Amino acid sequence: MDALKGVYNILTTPFLADGALDETSLRRLTTAIISMGVTGITILGVAGEAQKLTEPERARVVDIVMEMNAGRVPIIVGASYDGTDTTIAACQAAQAAGAAGVMVAPPTFAQPGAGLIEHFRRVGASINIPIVLQDFPPVNGVMLSPRAMADLVEAVPAITTIKLEDAPTPQRIAQTLALIGDRATIVGGLGGMYLLDELRRGARGTMTGFAFPEVLISIWHAWETGDRSAAANIYYKYLPVLIFEGQPKLGVAIRKEILRRRGLIDHAVVRHPGPELDGGILTDLDETLAHIGIDADFSLSH
Amino acid sequence: MDALKGVYNILTTPFLADGALDETSLRRLTTAIISMGVTGITILGVAGEAQKLTEPERARVVDIVMEMNAGRVPIIVGASYDGTDTTIAACQAAQAAGAAGVMVAPPTFAQPGAGLIEHFRRVGASINIPIVLQDFPPVNGVMLSPRAMADLVEAVPAITTIKLEDAPTPQRIAQTLALIGDRATIVGGLGGMYLLDELRRGARGTMTGFAFPEVLISIWHAWETGDRSAAANIYYKYLPVLIFEGQPKLGVAIRKEILRRRGLIDHAVVRHPGPELDGGILTDLDETLAHIGIDADFSLSH
Amino acid sequence: MDALKGVYNILTTPFLADGALDETSLRRLTTAIISMGVTGITILGVAGEAQKLTEPERARVVDIVMEMNAGRVPIIVGASYDGTDTTIAACQAAQAAGAAGVMVAPPTFAQPGAGLIEHFRRVGASINIPIVLQDFPPVNGVMLSPRAMADLVEAVPAITTIKLEDAPTPQRIAQTLALIGDRATIVGGLGGMYLLDELRRGARGTMTGFAFPEVLISIWHAWETGDRSAAANIYYKYLPVLIFEGQPKLGVAIRKEILRRRGLIDHAVVRHPGPELDGGILTDLDETLAHIGIDADFSLSH
Amino acid sequence: MDALKGVYNILTTPFLADGALDETSLRRLTTAIISMGVTGITILGVAGEAQKLTEPERARVVDIVMEMNAGRVPIIVGASYDGTDTTIAACQAAQAAGAAGVMVAPPTFAQPGAGLIEHFRRVGASINIPIVLQDFPPVNGVMLSPRAMADLVEAVPAITTIKLEDAPTPQRIAQTLALIGDRATIVGGLGGMYLLDELRRGARGTMTGFAFPEVLISIWHAWETGDRSAAANIYYKYLPVLIFEGQPKLGVAIRKEILRRRGLIDHAVVRHPGPELDGGILTDLDETLAHIGIDADFSLSH
Repeated sequence: MDALKGVYNILTTPFLADGALDETSLRRLTTAIISMGVTGITILGVAGEAQKLTEPERARVVDIVMEMNAGRVPIIVGASYDGTDTTIAACQAAQAAGAAGVMVAPPTFAQPGAGLIEHFRRVGASINIPIVLQDFPPVNGVMLSPRAMADLVEAVPAITTIKLEDAPTPQRIAQTLALIGDRATIVGGLGGMYLLDELRRGARGTMTGFAFPEVLISIWHAWETGDRSAAANIYYKYLPVLIFEGQPKLGVAIRKEILRRRGLIDHAVVRHPGPELDGGILTDLDETLAHIGIDADFSLSH
Repeated sequence: MDALKGVYNILTTPFLADGALDETSLRRLTTAIISMGVTGITILGVAGEAQKLTEPERARVVDIVMEMNAGRVPIIVGASYDGTDTTIAACQAAQAAGAAGVMVAPPTFAQPGAGLIEHFRRVGASINIPIVLQDFPPVNGVMLSPRAMADLVEAVPAITTIKLEDAPTPQRIAQTLALIGDRATIVGGLGGMYLLDELRRGARGTMTGFAFPEVLISIWHAWETGDRSAAANIYYKYLPVLIFEGQPKLGVAIRKEILRRRGLIDHAVVRHPGPELDGGILTDLDETLAHIGIDADFSLSH
Repeated sequence: MDALKGVYNILTTPFLADGALDETSLRRLTTAIISMGVTGITILGVAGEAQKLTEPERARVVDIVMEMNAGRVPIIVGASYDGTDTTIAACQAAQAAGAAGVMVAPPTFAQPGAGLIEHFRRVGASINIPIVLQDFPPVNGVMLSPRAMADLVEAVPAITTIKLEDAPTPQRIAQTLALIGDRATIVGGLGGMYLLDELRRGARGTMTGFAFPEVLISIWHAWETGDRSAAANIYYKYLPVLIFEGQPKLGVAIRKEILRRRGLIDHAVVRHPGPELDGGILTDLDETLAHIGIDADFSLSH
Repeated sequence: MDALKGVYNILTTPFLADGALDETSLRRLTTAIISMGVTGITILGVAGEAQKLTEPERARVVDIVMEMNAGRVPIIVGASYDGTDTTIAACQAAQAAGAAGVMVAPPTFAQPGAGLIEHFRRVGASINIPIVLQDFPPVNGVMLSPRAMADLVEAVPAITTIKLEDAPTPQRIAQTLALIGDRATIVGGLGGMYLLDELRRGARGTMTGFAFPEVLISIWHAWETGDRSAAANIYYKYLPVLIFEGQPKLGVAIRKEILRRRGLIDHAVVRHPGPELDGGILTDLDETLAHIGIDADFSLSH
C-alpha cells in the first residue's frame, strides 16, 4: 500500500446495553460503511474506544471486520502503546491479521526527540506495512510541531501518512507539507470539522468517524475531480452537524446516537468512563439534523 | 449592574505597522462596535492581547474606550493577574476608571479549592462592581468543573456572571446552571462558534470578539424574542465564517484581518509572539467570505 | 487484608539484554526482597514498567511472584487501565491469582468528579480485595486534591489505602488525613525520598521501589517502635542515595543499575522508551554510594 | 559581563504582615546576602514572587537593591512577560536601572520553534546586557529539550547563560553542554537540591534562593579549588535542609520562615495565592534544622 489518500472511516465499536461487545451491530456497521464507498476503514482508534477494550476484544474486533470486509477495502489497525515492544507486538499481530497498515501515536507524555524517533524506527522495522503517524495531543499529552513530524517522517521510512489532528489543522498541514514534500501524505481527522480547509491546504483526505461518511466521501470526490465549488457546497451544507457532533469530549457519544438512529448499530452505549448525553443535547441534536433536512430515514441528498 | 446578558464584544486592540498602539483605529473601532448595537464592550481580554500590553498601554486603552463610549454601554475590563493583590489593584483601577464590571480568570496553574476561592473572595470584597469569572483553560492551565465554578459563585457574591469557554460549552453550561440556579448568569465565548447551542442550554448571551458582532446581536435578538427558528437560520448562515475565524490559536489574527478588510482598523498586526497567517489562509478566507455572500462592502443582510 | 501499613516494595521487572522478561532474575529478586523483611510486594506498578509489558508478560510476572512468595507476604497487583471494564477485568484476574489487593490510578486525563467516583465504585464492587488508590500525576495527568481523594475514599469502601505521590507529600498527607480520619491509611512513594517527613505527617509506611528496601524497613521499624531519632538517623544517612536514585524520569534506570550491582538482577535494562544513563551518571552514582559507605558487597549497617 | 558562573542568590521579596512591600527587611536582607559572599543577586524571580508584584513595586525592589548593593556585585533582573514588546520594555528598564543582566523565561505555553527564537532574538537585540535563559516548566508550561535550548543559544548571542531547572538537571546539563560547548554557561537552581550533581555534570554554579546561601557558596568554592571531597561533604551535610526547603510548591514559604528565624527578614509572609505552612511543617522544620546542628543563632560551621 502506498501513502494513504481518500476517506478512511474510524470505525465505531458498538456495545450491547450491558457494555459487552455487540458483534451483530459491528458486522452490520462494517458492511454498511463499506457500501457507502469509503476508501478504507480504521479500527481500534481512539474513536473506536480501543483504550477501553480488552486485548481479546481488540482481537475479536479485528477478526470480525476482516471477515466482513473480505478484502474489499484496506483496513488500518490502531496500535498505540506506551512501550516499544508492546507496540511492535500489536503491529505484528495486526499485520498477521491482514491489516493494510497500522496507526500509531506517540507513547503517553513522550517528548519529541531521539527517543521518540527510535520508538517509531523500531516499530517500522518490525513490520512491512506502513505506519500512519497519529498527531492528537488530547490522548497522550504529546504536541508535535511540524518540524517534529518532519523529523519522524525523515527518519522512519515506514511512516507514509500523518493523521494530523492538532488544531489549527489546515495551516499546520501546509507547514508540515512544506517540510516533507511528497515523502508522506497528510490526512485530517477531528470528525471532519475542518475537512474543506484541510483539503485547501494539501490534505489528501481524512480519517475520521463522522456519522455520515457518505458526506465526507462526496466532498472528497468533488474535490478530487477538481470541482471545488461542489465540495464547498456539500461541506457547508453539513457543517452544522459536523460541528455539533464534533464537540470536544462528547463526539463519540453523539456519533453513536446518530448511528443508532440510522439503524447502523443497536445501542448508543459508550463505555465508562465516557461522556454522557443529557436530554437537552438529544433535543438539540434533533433540531440540528432537522435544520439540514435529514429526514427520518436518513437518506441524504446533495 | 446586574448579572450580564446580551452580546458583549471583546474589543480587539489595534496596532500600527510597527506594533505601537493604534489609537486612531481604536477610536474608530470602538465607535463602530457600539453603533452595531452591542450590549456592552469588554476590553483587555485575551483576545484584546492584554497579556502583550504594558501597564501604561492598558491604561490608555481603558481611557480611550471610556472616552469614546461616553457612558453609552457598560464597559467590562479584564483584570487577570497571578497575585491577589495585583488583581485587586487592577480591579480597583478599572472601577475608578468607570468600568461596569471586571473579568477575572484564575491565576496561572491555580488549582480549584480553598485558595482559589479566597483569591476571588478578596478581589470581590475590594470593589463594588461585579466580577465576570472567566473559564478558559488555554490561558492559565486551570480547568474548572461545574462544581468548582458553582463553589466560586456560592462563596463570592461579586461573581454575577460566568464566561464559560471550556468545551463542550453547551452541556457544561446546563450542568453549571443546574448547580447555581439564577445566582449568576452564564455567557459563552469561543468566538461565538457554539452560540446557538449555548443559548439552547441556558446561556444568556455571549462575550466574544467575532469580527461580525452584528451577526451575534441578530441571533441574540431573535432568540430573546422567542424566534428560535430565525436565530438558527442566522447562526447557520454564518457558521462557515464563525468556524473559520474560530480556529484555535489563529482566531485573533484572522479576526484582525477581517476587521481590517471591513475598514474598522488600519492594520491586521498581531503582537509577537502570536499567530502568523500565511498566504494560503488569506485565500481561503476570501473563499469562505464569498461563500456566505459577504460582499466587498461587508454589508450584511439576513 | 486491612488498610495497608508498613513497607511495600514496588518490584522492579528485570529484562534480559535483548529486552525479554528475565524470569531467572525475577525469581531471585522476589526471594531476596522478601528476605529483607518487606511487609509486602507490589507488582505491575509504573516502576515495574507495567505499561511496557504485554498482557501475557503481566500474567507471567504475577505467576512467578506468587509462586516465589508462596503466601509469605501480601502481594498487591497494579491494575490501572483507561476503561472501567478493562480495569475490572484486570482486578478480577489479580484477585483470582491470589492478590491481596490491587493498585489503581485514575484513567488518563480523567478529571475528578462523579465519573471518576463511578469508575472506582464499579471497580471496588467487582472484587472483594482492597484498592490502593494511586495519586501520581506524571503517569496520567490527573491531579487529585485532598478533597478529591477524600471524596473517592468516602464513596468507595474498597479503597482502604492511598499511595500519595503528588508533592509536597508530607503536608498533603496531613491535609488528606484531616478529611478522611481513619477510614483509610496513606502511604508514601516517590522512591522514599520524603519518607521521614511523610511519617511525621501521618503516613503509615511507604510503597516504593528504592533499591535498598532494607533502609526503608529500618526507618519504618524504628518509627513504629517510637524511636523517632533512630528513624531520622537512618533516613538522613541514606538521603544522598535516596535523592540520587529519586531523580525524576531517571529513577527506574538508576535503581536497576544498583540492583544489578547488588547482584539481585542480571541486567540493568530498561525497556524502550525509557531513560538512558550516560557514563557520567554512573560515575556519580559510584561517588554517591561510596560517600555513604556502601561497600563492594553492599552490606548495609546502621 | 561574561557568561555567569558562581552563586547567584534569587532574592526573596519580604512583605509586612499586611502584605505590603517590607522595604526595611529588603534592605537588611540585601546587605546580609552580599556580605555572605555571593557572586551576584537576582531579583524579580519566581522565588521573589515577582508575578505577585505590581509594576511600581517591581521598580521599587530594583531601586532598593541597586542602592544597597552600590555596585558591589552584579544584579540580574527577572523580566519574563508574555509579549515580546513587554519583555523588551522590562529588559530595557532593567538595563537603565543598572542591571548586569536579565533573566527571561519563555512566554506562557509558548512552544519551542521559530516564534520562540524570534522572541529571544528581538529581546536580545534590544539591550546590551546578557540574557539568562530560564528553563522552569512549572511557571509557564514550556518544556525545553536540550536541542531546543541549544537552538536558542545558537540563534541569540545575548543568551550567555542557561538557568536549567527541569529535572533531572544533572544529566540534562551534560546533554545541553554537549550541544552548546562553551557558547554559554549553565547554572542550576531548584533551591540547590542537586547542586553537587549539577557541578559534577558541568554546571558553573547555581542561581537559587536557598535560605543558607553561605552553604552554596562554600560548596562552590570547594569545587572551584578542585576539592571535590570537601564540596561533597558540605553538600551532604546540608542535604536534609536542602531537600526540606526544596519541597515543590512550598519552597518559598519554608525559605521565608528560615530567613525570618535567621533575623534577615521580619515576617515570613507569602503573598496570596501562595502556599501556607501548617503547624506540623514548622515542627518538622525545627527537627530538620536541629538534626544538622544549626543552632539558635544560625551560625554555620563546616
